[in-house]
Amino acid sequence: MVRVAYMSKMYAPTLKELPAEAEIASHKLSLRAGLIRKSASGIYSFLPLGYRVIKKIEDIVRDEMDAIGCQEVLLPIVQPAELWRESGRWDDYGPELARFNDRHEREFCLGPTHEEIITDMVKGEIRSYRNLPFTLYQINMKFRDEVRPRFGLLRGREFNMKDAYSFHTTQESLQEHYDQQAAAYGRICERLGLDYRPVDADSGQIGGDVSREFMALADAGEAELVYCDCGYGATTESLGEDFDPSIEHSCPKCGAPLKLVRGIEVSQVFQLGTKYSKVMGLTYQDENGVDQFPFMGCYGVGVSRSMAAVIEQSHDDDGIIWPVSIAPYQVMIIALSSDDEAFNYADSLAQQLVEKGVEIVVDDRDERAGVKFADADLLGFPLQVIVGKRGFEAGEIEVKIRKTGEKHVVALDDATTEIKQLLDRL
Amino acid sequence: MVRVAYMSKMYAPTLKELPAEAEIASHKLSLRAGLIRKSASGIYSFLPLGYRVIKKIEDIVRDEMDAIGCQEVLLPIVQPAELWRESGRWDDYGPELARFNDRHEREFCLGPTHEEIITDMVKGEIRSYRNLPFTLYQINMKFRDEVRPRFGLLRGREFNMKDAYSFHTTQESLQEHYDQQAAAYGRICERLGLDYRPVDADSGQIGGDVSREFMALADAGEAELVYCDCGYGATTESLGEDFDPSIEHSCPKCGAPLKLVRGIEVSQVFQLGTKYSKVMGLTYQDENGVDQFPFMGCYGVGVSRSMAAVIEQSHDDDGIIWPVSIAPYQVMIIALSSDDEAFNYADSLAQQLVEKGVEIVVDDRDERAGVKFADADLLGFPLQVIVGKRGFEAGEIEVKIRKTGEKHVVALDDATTEIKQLLDRL
Repeated sequence: MVRVAYMSKMYAPTLKELPAEAEIASHKLSLRAGLIRKSASGIYSFLPLGYRVIKKIEDIVRDEMDAIGCQEVLLPIVQPAELWRESGRWDDYGPELARFNDRHEREFCLGPTHEEIITDMVKGEIRSYRNLPFTLYQINMKFRDEVRPRFGLLRGREFNMKDAYSFHTTQESLQEHYDQQAAAYGRICERLGLDYRPVDADSGQIGGDVSREFMALADAGEAELVYCDCGYGATTESLGEDFDPSIEHSCPKCGAPLKLVRGIEVSQVFQLGTKYSKVMGLTYQDENGVDQFPFMGCYGVGVSRSMAAVIEQSHDDDGIIWPVSIAPYQVMIIALSSDDEAFNYADSLAQQLVEKGVEIVVDDRDERAGVKFADADLLGFPLQVIVGKRGFEAGEIEVKIRKTGEKHVVALDDATTEIKQLLDRL
Repeated sequence: MVRVAYMSKMYAPTLKELPAEAEIASHKLSLRAGLIRKSASGIYSFLPLGYRVIKKIEDIVRDEMDAIGCQEVLLPIVQPAELWRESGRWDDYGPELARFNDRHEREFCLGPTHEEIITDMVKGEIRSYRNLPFTLYQINMKFRDEVRPRFGLLRGREFNMKDAYSFHTTQESLQEHYDQQAAAYGRICERLGLDYRPVDADSGQIGGDVSREFMALADAGEAELVYCDCGYGATTESLGEDFDPSIEHSCPKCGAPLKLVRGIEVSQVFQLGTKYSKVMGLTYQDENGVDQFPFMGCYGVGVSRSMAAVIEQSHDDDGIIWPVSIAPYQVMIIALSSDDEAFNYADSLAQQLVEKGVEIVVDDRDERAGVKFADADLLGFPLQVIVGKRGFEAGEIEVKIRKTGEKHVVALDDATTEIKQLLDRL
């Protein structure tokens, strides 16, 4: 059941003084707007407004995964060392892998990625080629012990990620699903309102030969990127040592001058081939009853990082500008008058909109108008509906579009319809 | 978007041979029906069918929490030792608290419970009595390094839990919310279809004076319980050393003979008082500007444990019997005939039911009828719809109610309506 939310009851503490370590817009605004709070270096709590955004991103990712036939599972965060020894990564991974001994002195790690766990899990259960292909995914917390956690959610240690793993009898089947995942990742970026470029990528510690990253265009990211409006994009690293980013280059696709930026990697797809199935002994029987190693792919979306990337791309000096798709609430009704009649109208408008499926928060706090306007801009709900005493007496309310600043005066009787229409146009 | 699921594509490996350690029904059936798989002692993965149940339990819990005004957050799994030193529990908690050092040799633990994290988080942000009361909750994985993990999800190490924390200016306000939580916990048990009793409880390592547990009646649990059909229940432990469970006792409420059972603790509510706010220095200013320590409560629901408790109470020799509220799918359509016309009918029936909001899985596998019937009973979907060649030609299908075994013959044209009606009656 969807309910109207009230600012007077909401745990949404805004901050005026920021820690010096908050250098970039998404980090500053996530703290100022009360989306997250730090518990330790690179480790954050999500407050109610921030967690609503996270859940909406998760739902978009889930919807796109389900649409291409992936199945959701939940894999352990705490993983036994044996499996990482089997794959060889217990030694290879280095200090980013957080390790501990349990009370019986058995070794474990906190999962930074789940190739070992899933390969082990399906071992012995995919008996025949008829069981393939399939793809499992999870949305879960991961831990990477970054040497220098920074930029808030952009490079945290504990983070929220969607990771999918696919299993195939042939390279062609893997390629087909890899392309489906890449297409889904493009749709996810679009539904999040991100300006992004897919680029060729290095497979790093995951392994495999073929990989692409989806980069949100932003200076705050950790990768340097050249890109073009035509859709072309490449990391400067991938262009080789001779590439000089300080001089102008032409787009290899359309010839226009390339632009330069430090991009945010929001998602990545990998073709793992038979790397994990071979080393961990995962086999299936082919049509002739012969044991074969399945081809695997893995596909990750940084959920909490995507939230930071959206803020990085979509804010102004006053605060966040949420796209409708992941706004914590779509509409904030700012009740300015403590006059009963005006307030009751604001509240009944909220109820009507909720019944039409609009997510509404009413600012019913006993605060000055200036404080409410500033908070509404900071929190970044797509539409602000201002119900003041004078306007109300004149039979009007004001609707402000956060993104453009555009204001509409709307007659009280038309409010529900007009607000719905404005929202649909955003 | 809701889609029809097909068994031929589903990752739902059923097991015939069970590990010897699986002693109780919920553990055996969770493994046999392909709901969970073990990754290490007390550490499980949830497969697609199992995770659907978990998400439904989470949604019921979320709905009941939201209904009493609680706000959802997400707190870190990895927690800094400093906070546990502040509360004194770094030393008190013992080896159940899994600890590790990060790459910079700073000490951390994996959260078995989140009083420290949340008390620290709200510190400095609740400035005034006007900010109270409020309740925050999360649904997240926790880790407790049990000395002897057993019974599958009943006593695991990594487990899924809802934990809520409330903050109040007075004991009366705490009592009021504690009562609301207890009422919500009763509703949660009812929506899960659990036969349960609330009992007075020991506060253990959480602390505080007042606590109640919600016990699912089952022999497989770890607590010994006397109970009565009138609603009375008590742990034998709470009745004192002199209480002899081997002789018959009368119910103190209604006089009927008490029954004995080892119950499963599915949830617990605690009044913490000012224990954590005092020791961690959490204060607010009262009406006179004087610093005060808020009263706190905490409230936990074992999500994965609830799934085990439901199976423990609701199964037979053939498999699980899911209540409609948390069944992975509400209806399984068993397509017996490979005849195109009959199969197309089964598929179009599935599409029609999905459009009416019914969750459907079609068993379209190339398997013998006996295998399909056995798997349908094992997996425990509330309704089985059997589309066979002979019945189809006679214009009929069969609908079986998993719980009672009752069978209904339904005309093809009436199928959607009759299946909806049967489901509503369950």
